[in-house]
Amino acid sequence: MTDRSEDNSPSRRAFLKGSLAAGGALAGATMARAEGPDPLITEKQSWAMGTGDGVDATPYGMPIRFEGDVVRRNVGWLTADTISSINFTPIHALDGTITPQGCAFERHHSGAIELSKDDYRLMINGLVDQPLVFTYADLERFPRVTRTFFLECAANTGMEWAGAQLNGAQFTHGMIHNMEYTGVTLRTLLEEAGLAAAGDFKDKWVYVEGADASSNGRSIPMEKALDDCMIAFKANGEALRKEHGYPVRLIVPGWEGNMWVKWLRRIEVTGQAIESREETSKYTDTLEDGTSRKWTWVMDAKSVVTSPSPQSPIKHGHGPLVITGLAWSGRGAITRVDVSIDGGKNWQEARLSSEGQDKALSRFYLDIDWQGEEMLLQSRAMDSSGYVQPTKAQLREVRGLNSVYHNNCIQTWHVYPTGEAENVEVS
Amino acid sequence: MTDRSEDNSPSRRAFLKGSLAAGGALAGATMARAEGPDPLITEKQSWAMGTGDGVDATPYGMPIRFEGDVVRRNVGWLTADTISSINFTPIHALDGTITPQGCAFERHHSGAIELSKDDYRLMINGLVDQPLVFTYADLERFPRVTRTFFLECAANTGMEWAGAQLNGAQFTHGMIHNMEYTGVTLRTLLEEAGLAAAGDFKDKWVYVEGADASSNGRSIPMEKALDDCMIAFKANGEALRKEHGYPVRLIVPGWEGNMWVKWLRRIEVTGQAIESREETSKYTDTLEDGTSRKWTWVMDAKSVVTSPSPQSPIKHGHGPLVITGLAWSGRGAITRVDVSIDGGKNWQEARLSSEGQDKALSRFYLDIDWQGEEMLLQSRAMDSSGYVQPTKAQLREVRGLNSVYHNNCIQTWHVYPTGEAENVEVS
Repeated sequence: MTDRSEDNSPSRRAFLKGSLAAGGALAGATMARAEGPDPLITEKQSWAMGTGDGVDATPYGMPIRFEGDVVRRNVGWLTADTISSINFTPIHALDGTITPQGCAFERHHSGAIELSKDDYRLMINGLVDQPLVFTYADLERFPRVTRTFFLECAANTGMEWAGAQLNGAQFTHGMIHNMEYTGVTLRTLLEEAGLAAAGDFKDKWVYVEGADASSNGRSIPMEKALDDCMIAFKANGEALRKEHGYPVRLIVPGWEGNMWVKWLRRIEVTGQAIESREETSKYTDTLEDGTSRKWTWVMDAKSVVTSPSPQSPIKHGHGPLVITGLAWSGRGAITRVDVSIDGGKNWQEARLSSEGQDKALSRFYLDIDWQGEEMLLQSRAMDSSGYVQPTKAQLREVRGLNSVYHNNCIQTWHVYPTGEAENVEVS
Repeated sequence: MTDRSEDNSPSRRAFLKGSLAAGGALAGATMARAEGPDPLITEKQSWAMGTGDGVDATPYGMPIRFEGDVVRRNVGWLTADTISSINFTPIHALDGTITPQGCAFERHHSGAIELSKDDYRLMINGLVDQPLVFTYADLERFPRVTRTFFLECAANTGMEWAGAQLNGAQFTHGMIHNMEYTGVTLRTLLEEAGLAAAGDFKDKWVYVEGADASSNGRSIPMEKALDDCMIAFKANGEALRKEHGYPVRLIVPGWEGNMWVKWLRRIEVTGQAIESREETSKYTDTLEDGTSRKWTWVMDAKSVVTSPSPQSPIKHGHGPLVITGLAWSGRGAITRVDVSIDGGKNWQEARLSSEGQDKALSRFYLDIDWQGEEMLLQSRAMDSSGYVQPTKAQLREVRGLNSVYHNNCIQTWHVYPTGEAENVEVS
């Protein structure tokens, strides 16, 4: 068998030079390339021979060096001290629906701690028949489930209440990730401890806290605890990363990320909400009149165009353009996403990459023919509850301008004829 | 609000000491812990305060150091030289269905090459109306799809034809991974080039080759090319890793991994199969009489128990035990997995973590009460075509003992009363 990669015979070279189209027939596209043979095709390349030791030397691999800009980033002024920084997912550079752990949004309140499986304990106490303490090995013995959910920080898009602030999808919408979790349902562990002592469940709560110094305690109504919460030890197939709560975190599907307690150490069944710092002075929504909305746990339907966007401008010429983005809802599955290129005057239905899954990210695509016109690019999500993502004006009308959390309004990117994009507001 | 993590008041300490059960009520479990207060619960721990700089310092993160053994491994004697080593997925230590790119099985034939997007070209030539060359940016302009598929090397489990050889699921079954891919369908690109020149498609082929020195050319029937093949540039949301074919690889769902050409550089529409080295002297199955099976592309239904297994022994005591593993089929979705603990005499239906997806990994679980008895642990997959995974005896009866490729027989782990497990054969 001839090694075809070495076939630089005259006839093939002539073919390459003479009849191979420089550029595709892609309708309307400008895919100009230099005339004559392309040395990247006709000449032997130095990079074509690998070093061979690459993978043996990297038993756990990292992204290729050319992708060095696809990383989490923080915004210094958003948090007062380094102990509680926020690192945003580079959603402008990703596609599909899964977020790799390595570049997944991360927020902690007193540092990402290193807690070994041997040192791990999980206590269930309070209004249970039998208080229990589980080691990590104990948790591995209960019936296991695997499910994919998004996590969104309540503060995602929070800076945008006051106007178009942060120039990039990573910063306006990057406090989100979507992973496949494996673990045990919270219901399984609560039933193991026995809930007869709690009497009528309907008015009971669980108070959950982490093993980090902040403890980050939150109260969760028993109905949610018994519905779909999980005690997870794997994400995307492997152990949780340190910054995502290794070895065990709580999963509270569709609810604000702060409730997904990392390094989970204790679950107390209580007769009422604890009203901890993290659910009173923080993670409440201040309204126009200075009062605050209480218990705003669910992340409402939301979407964003990830490309084109300020960090992902159109670099090619006119013609076919893929508009893509993410949509999600804490109330169920995404059923439809519409895209507007004129600031919301007209809408076109986008394709979902697959049927929407309950409380998980959906990827949408819209293929357009772009001839360099300015665009006011928007997306609008709808979910299985019938809810439609609101405009910023609609949201402000109800919520005022004093909020930080739960901004799920329609985002606008102004795309210029150059292909550059900017974060703007439209009335 | 009191910082509850600092609440070491006498009453709480008394509670911990006096009434908290040491060990769960988990039916039949032995979860003994030391009498008296557990200092991991009652005492302040040095690890509870994070350093705070952890995530800012790791914009792209790696697994925590405690998981340092969850890595790809090779088996030196399987390949003659380091340029073509095989690195197996640590499936014994993973759960769920997604395989992180960083520890996903990798096989190359002349090194994993570093090919930048700028240097990337993809040619379509042969029996097409308009030969085309695409840059990476061109590919991003076509309608995009996102789909999850398993990749299995034809040689996975190949050493086991001769007997129980490799003592661990990573080595017997680790030439597999499962990722969510984003890219363009091969059909889209072929239609862009135009297939009128090819006449009747049904007897045509595509010959695909990579930009690495080996080129690794393979022939694929046009029917498959137009069915579900993809030109992928993302895996699990982010760019393909170098060793997985950055920037572009071919996806041939359900078919042997060698056909999933990495660093894809050329697609030629031909009137017949090329019968390249990689589909004649390699990747064919030698039968008992010395003749070879030709065109054995599809990976038949298969499964393996990943835990317990030789690398993942039972470390806890008697009582509840989660048996878990993976199942897949190149002919469709997994519909059912049965597990036997007595070497195939009796079978119990396992739970699938979610409905089987077409040509993607399924995760199964079976919860048993293990009282230290020896087990001959097996799993048996069934797929949507009605196919049932065969025993090793059944497979040998048809295929003899001269094969390397396409061993999809039922695997047996002998689990001893100590919880240790070993690769064995049962008749």
